[in-house]
Amino acid sequence: MRSQLTGVVPPLCTPFTPRGEVDTASLTSLVNRTLDAGASALFALGTSGEAAFLTDPQRRTVLETVAEAAAGRVPVLAGVIDMTTPRVLAHARTAAAAGATALVATAPYYTGTHPAETADHYRRIRAAVDLPLIAYDIPPAVHGKLPAATLLALAEDRTLAGLKDSSGDLGSLRRLLVALRERGLEDVFSVLTGSELTVDGALLGGAQGVVPGLGNVDPAGYVRLYEHARAGRWPAAAAEQDRLAALFALVDAGAGTPPGMSGSASALAGFKTALHLLGVIGHPATAAGYLLPEPAVRTVRALLAGAGLR
Amino acid sequence: MRSQLTGVVPPLCTPFTPRGEVDTASLTSLVNRTLDAGASALFALGTSGEAAFLTDPQRRTVLETVAEAAAGRVPVLAGVIDMTTPRVLAHARTAAAAGATALVATAPYYTGTHPAETADHYRRIRAAVDLPLIAYDIPPAVHGKLPAATLLALAEDRTLAGLKDSSGDLGSLRRLLVALRERGLEDVFSVLTGSELTVDGALLGGAQGVVPGLGNVDPAGYVRLYEHARAGRWPAAAAEQDRLAALFALVDAGAGTPPGMSGSASALAGFKTALHLLGVIGHPATAAGYLLPEPAVRTVRALLAGAGLR
Amino acid sequence: MRSQLTGVVPPLCTPFTPRGEVDTASLTSLVNRTLDAGASALFALGTSGEAAFLTDPQRRTVLETVAEAAAGRVPVLAGVIDMTTPRVLAHARTAAAAGATALVATAPYYTGTHPAETADHYRRIRAAVDLPLIAYDIPPAVHGKLPAATLLALAEDRTLAGLKDSSGDLGSLRRLLVALRERGLEDVFSVLTGSELTVDGALLGGAQGVVPGLGNVDPAGYVRLYEHARAGRWPAAAAEQDRLAALFALVDAGAGTPPGMSGSASALAGFKTALHLLGVIGHPATAAGYLLPEPAVRTVRALLAGAGLR
Amino acid sequence: MRSQLTGVVPPLCTPFTPRGEVDTASLTSLVNRTLDAGASALFALGTSGEAAFLTDPQRRTVLETVAEAAAGRVPVLAGVIDMTTPRVLAHARTAAAAGATALVATAPYYTGTHPAETADHYRRIRAAVDLPLIAYDIPPAVHGKLPAATLLALAEDRTLAGLKDSSGDLGSLRRLLVALRERGLEDVFSVLTGSELTVDGALLGGAQGVVPGLGNVDPAGYVRLYEHARAGRWPAAAAEQDRLAALFALVDAGAGTPPGMSGSASALAGFKTALHLLGVIGHPATAAGYLLPEPAVRTVRALLAGAGLR
Repeated sequence: MRSQLTGVVPPLCTPFTPRGEVDTASLTSLVNRTLDAGASALFALGTSGEAAFLTDPQRRTVLETVAEAAAGRVPVLAGVIDMTTPRVLAHARTAAAAGATALVATAPYYTGTHPAETADHYRRIRAAVDLPLIAYDIPPAVHGKLPAATLLALAEDRTLAGLKDSSGDLGSLRRLLVALRERGLEDVFSVLTGSELTVDGALLGGAQGVVPGLGNVDPAGYVRLYEHARAGRWPAAAAEQDRLAALFALVDAGAGTPPGMSGSASALAGFKTALHLLGVIGHPATAAGYLLPEPAVRTVRALLAGAGLR
Repeated sequence: MRSQLTGVVPPLCTPFTPRGEVDTASLTSLVNRTLDAGASALFALGTSGEAAFLTDPQRRTVLETVAEAAAGRVPVLAGVIDMTTPRVLAHARTAAAAGATALVATAPYYTGTHPAETADHYRRIRAAVDLPLIAYDIPPAVHGKLPAATLLALAEDRTLAGLKDSSGDLGSLRRLLVALRERGLEDVFSVLTGSELTVDGALLGGAQGVVPGLGNVDPAGYVRLYEHARAGRWPAAAAEQDRLAALFALVDAGAGTPPGMSGSASALAGFKTALHLLGVIGHPATAAGYLLPEPAVRTVRALLAGAGLR
Repeated sequence: MRSQLTGVVPPLCTPFTPRGEVDTASLTSLVNRTLDAGASALFALGTSGEAAFLTDPQRRTVLETVAEAAAGRVPVLAGVIDMTTPRVLAHARTAAAAGATALVATAPYYTGTHPAETADHYRRIRAAVDLPLIAYDIPPAVHGKLPAATLLALAEDRTLAGLKDSSGDLGSLRRLLVALRERGLEDVFSVLTGSELTVDGALLGGAQGVVPGLGNVDPAGYVRLYEHARAGRWPAAAAEQDRLAALFALVDAGAGTPPGMSGSASALAGFKTALHLLGVIGHPATAAGYLLPEPAVRTVRALLAGAGLR
Repeated sequence: MRSQLTGVVPPLCTPFTPRGEVDTASLTSLVNRTLDAGASALFALGTSGEAAFLTDPQRRTVLETVAEAAAGRVPVLAGVIDMTTPRVLAHARTAAAAGATALVATAPYYTGTHPAETADHYRRIRAAVDLPLIAYDIPPAVHGKLPAATLLALAEDRTLAGLKDSSGDLGSLRRLLVALRERGLEDVFSVLTGSELTVDGALLGGAQGVVPGLGNVDPAGYVRLYEHARAGRWPAAAAEQDRLAALFALVDAGAGTPPGMSGSASALAGFKTALHLLGVIGHPATAAGYLLPEPAVRTVRALLAGAGLR
C-alpha cells in the first residue's frame, strides 16, 4: 500500500444469514468473485458494508474474513466509522490487529466540527496506528464536507495517503486534483471517487481510482471501464459507464416500498438482491433485516439481464 | 421510576482530568451538588455529557460513578447513544449492568430512517433490557425529528415511558402534550423539555419536567423555576427564567475563538468553565481538550456574578 | 403605529374567486370579522396571504381592499416580500401609496446574505419609505435566521419598530426579549410571535403580541388568550391555547392528498376551507387552485365543531 | 432555437455603473466579446446575471440590450426568475416582448412544491408564451432538485426543450442522459451543464452544451474545450478544463472579506473584477454594490495572468 492505490476498489457488502449473523462463507465468495474480476484492492466496513449496523465483534469478524480471503493478493482497506476520535482510535487498533492494510476514516460527526479539529483527528489516528490512512468524505452521513485546504495540508505532511470522495461534488474534486498536481503530491496521495455514475469523467480529470458500491454487483464492468480509461479509449469508457448507469437503477427498485422506506436501505437491498440472484451470496437481507418485495426483485432480475449479467 | 418522572433532571457534564481521563472525583462532586439543589433525577451520557466522545470503558466508568454517587436517592437515566439498533443494544446492556435505572435513546442515525424502523428500534431496545425507556429527540445530531404519531403509538403500547425533547420545536411539543391528554396518557408518559430557555412556557403548557444543560451550572435556579410553576406563581417563574436566559450567554463566551470553533464545543466549554470557577470540578477542558481562552473565562466569571452565583 | 404595536395581528388570508382573481368582497368580510373579534392590527400580504403567488397588481388590490375595509380603525401592516433590496423597495413604495401604515420585510433571499448586508437592506427600506418597519424572520423561506445582534442594532438606531418572529426558535426569542429590556428598548420595539401554538408561553416571556395564521379562523380565541395573559390569568390562557392547538390540526387535514402535497399548501387550504365553512369567504381554493379533498373537508368541519366554532 | 441548443452558452453578468444603473454599453461590449469567442447562444438574467437583484424595468433593459447586441446572430435565452407561476408568467410575457428567443425558468420556490405542481408550472408557462422553454435546476436557490421523472415527462410532451443543470449532481445528470437516449429524446431535449469545472466529463457523458459562469471571463477557453470534445480530443479537453479549473479560483478571491461575506457575492465580484481588469466592462461592482478589496483584486490579476488572459 506504500505504492499508490489505484484502480477499482469495491466497498464490499456484508452478507448476513437469515438469523442476522455475518455470513462469512458468502463474504468469502464475494471477495473471491471481486478479485477474480480484477479489483485492485478491497474496502471493508464502509457504508455499503453497513458498518454502522455492525457490533464491534461483527466488525472484527468481517475484517478477519476479508483479510483471510484476500490472502495478501491485494490491499484490504478497513472503515473505522465512529463519531469521534477516541472511538475511532479503538476501531483502528482492532482493524490493524484483524489484518487491515490501510484505514478509511470520516471526519468526526454527531456534533459540528471545526477544520482544525478535523485535521487533529486524522493526525491522532495516523500517530496511533501505523497504517496508511484514507480520508472518507461523505457529507450526508457526517454533516459536512472535508475542506480542500485541510486535505492538502494532510497530504503535504503525509498524514493522509488518499481520499475516498463520496461527496458527489465533482467540481471540488477537480479543483483538488489540480491543486495536488500543482504541489507535486499526485504520487503520494490517491484520489478515489465514490461517484459510481461518473467514473469516466473522474478518470479523465485525473482521479486514480474508484470505490463503486455497484462494483459489488458488476466488478468486471468497472474494471473494463478503468482499463479503457487507462488506455485512452474514452468513448469505450463512456459506453461502459452508460451501461453501468442503466444497471444502477436497481438501487431504486425498492424505493417507496413500504412508503417512506429510506433510499439507502433500498439501494443496499438492491445490491444484495442482485448478488443473491447471481448466486454470490446466500441471503439478500440488509443488516436491519429488510428484504425487497417480490415486484422489486423482478425489477432487479430484469436489470441484471439488461446489463448482460447472469 | 415506575412512578412518573418529573421535575429538574440535569444532563450531567463529564469532567476530565488534564490527561483526558474521566475525573470521577469531580463527577461525584457534581452529582452531590446537583442533588443538594433539589434535582429529581440525573441524566448521564447525554450530549452535555459528551457521550459521543467517550470510549465504551469510559462510558461505563461515568455510569458507575454517577450511580454510586446517587446511591439510590434519585433515578439515574443513562444515554445509550449510537448509530443503529445493534450498537445501541450493546450499550443498553452495559448501562443496566452499571446501575442505570432508565435508558435514553435517540432514533437510529448515520443513514435516513423510516418511522417504522424507528418504532421497531425502540421496541427492540425495550424488549432486550427491562428498564423504562425515554426517547431522545435531537434533530441536529440525528438528521430528523421523531414524528408525533410514532411517539403516541409507542406511548400507547408502553414501549416508551417518556420523551426528552431537544428539538426546540415547542409548537409540536404542545400538540403532543394535548394529544397525550386526549388519549389519557399523561400519567404514563413523561414529557421533559430540553429547551432550557423556555421552561416556564413549557411547564405552563403541561410538560412534566426539564433536562437543562445549564442546570449543571445552576441547578437551584431551575428547581426554583420548577417550584414556582408547580405552585402557579407564573410571574415568578418567568423572572427566574429570564435570569437563567441571561446566564445562558456563557455558551457564547468562546464562540468564534478560534474562528470557526463549533458552537457546541463553545457551549460545553462554557458550562465546564463555570463549574470550574464555582469549584465544582477540577479541570474545565472538554473531551476534545478544548479550553476557553482567557477573555472568555472572564466573560463567564462576569455572567456568574451577574446571576448571583459564586 | 408610533405607539407600540401589541395584541393579536392576524396575517390575513387572500381569498380568490373560482377564476383565480382576488375576491375583494370576501376579503372585506374577513377584515370585518377579524376586527369585530378584537384584533389590534391587520397584516396583509404575508405568507398566509400567499403574497408569493400574487402578481404586483394583485398585491396592490389586496392592500387597497384591506386598507379601505379597515378604514383607519387599526394599523394595516403590509408584507413587501421579494428577493432583494431593489425589488423590495418597489413593493414598499406601492404599499405606502395603497394605504399601508407599516411595512413587514424579510431579509434578502435567493442567495446567501451577510448580516451586514441584511442590516443595510433594512436601513435602505426605512430611508426610502417613511413607515414603521417590522422585520420578518422566516428561515424556511429565506434560508437563514435573523441574527440577534443585527436586530438589536436596528432597534437601537430605530430602523426597526419590531419583529414578526416566525422562526419557531423560542429560546432565541427569549434571549432577545431579555436583551431588549436590558437596553431599555422594550417600548420602542414590538416583538410579535408567529408561533401560534405557544402564545401563552411567549406572552409570559414578554412578547407584546402574536401574528397567528390560525387567527384567520378563530380571531376571538386568540384575543381571549391575549386578554387572559394581560390579566395574569395564566391557567386560563393555557387552556385557551390548548383548545387552539387542537383546532390547529386542520392544517394537516389535507397532508399527503395527493401524496407529496406540500405541507404549506395543505395548511393554507385548511385555513381557507374553515373560513368557507364558517361563511366568511366565498371559495376555499389556494392561489395555486388547490382544494382539499372531501374527506379532509369533513375533518375540518369536525375540528371546527370540536373547537366550538360555527 | 427549434434546432437543438448546443455548445457554450455563457450566463451573462450584468454590469452596473458606479451609480447602480445597468451599464448598457458594458453589457453590449460583453455580448460582442462573448460572441467573437464563439459562443453558440447567450443566457441573460440568470444567477450570474444577478436577476434577483434587478427591478422589473432593469430586467427589461438588460434583455433589450442583449437582444439588440446579439442582433439575431445567436439565440438569446432569458431567465424568468420568480417565486411562483403567476409572477413568472408576467416576466415571461415581458421577455418575449423584449426580444428573448427562449425562456429559462426554475421550479416555483418560496414554499415547498410538489412534483405535480412543478410540472403544472412549466406547462402553464409553455402555454402562455410561445417560446422554447428550458428548465433551470438550481437547488441552493430553489430548495429542491427537479425530479428526473418530471423532466422526462415534460420532455416527452415537448413542454420543455432542455435543461440547464446547476444542481452539481452529475450522477443524476448521467442517469437522465441515459434515460433520454433510451426514449429517443436526445434530439428534442438539450442538456446543458452548469457545472463549469467538469465540462469535459459531462460532454463525454453526452451533455450537449455548457452554461459556464466562468465563460464570462474566458469564453474562448470553453469554446476550445467544447471543440476538443466534439472532435474526440479528450486529453486536450481535459487539459483545457484543468486550466479553467485553476482560473476558477477567482471566485474565492474575496471569500471572507469582510468575514462572513457570502460565497456567491465573492464569486460574482471575482467574475466582474476579472472583466474589468480585462477591459470588457467599465465598473466591477455587484448589484449590491460590493467591490473586491485590493488584495483580492491582485489575486484575480495573478490568476488571469496564470491562465494566459490579458
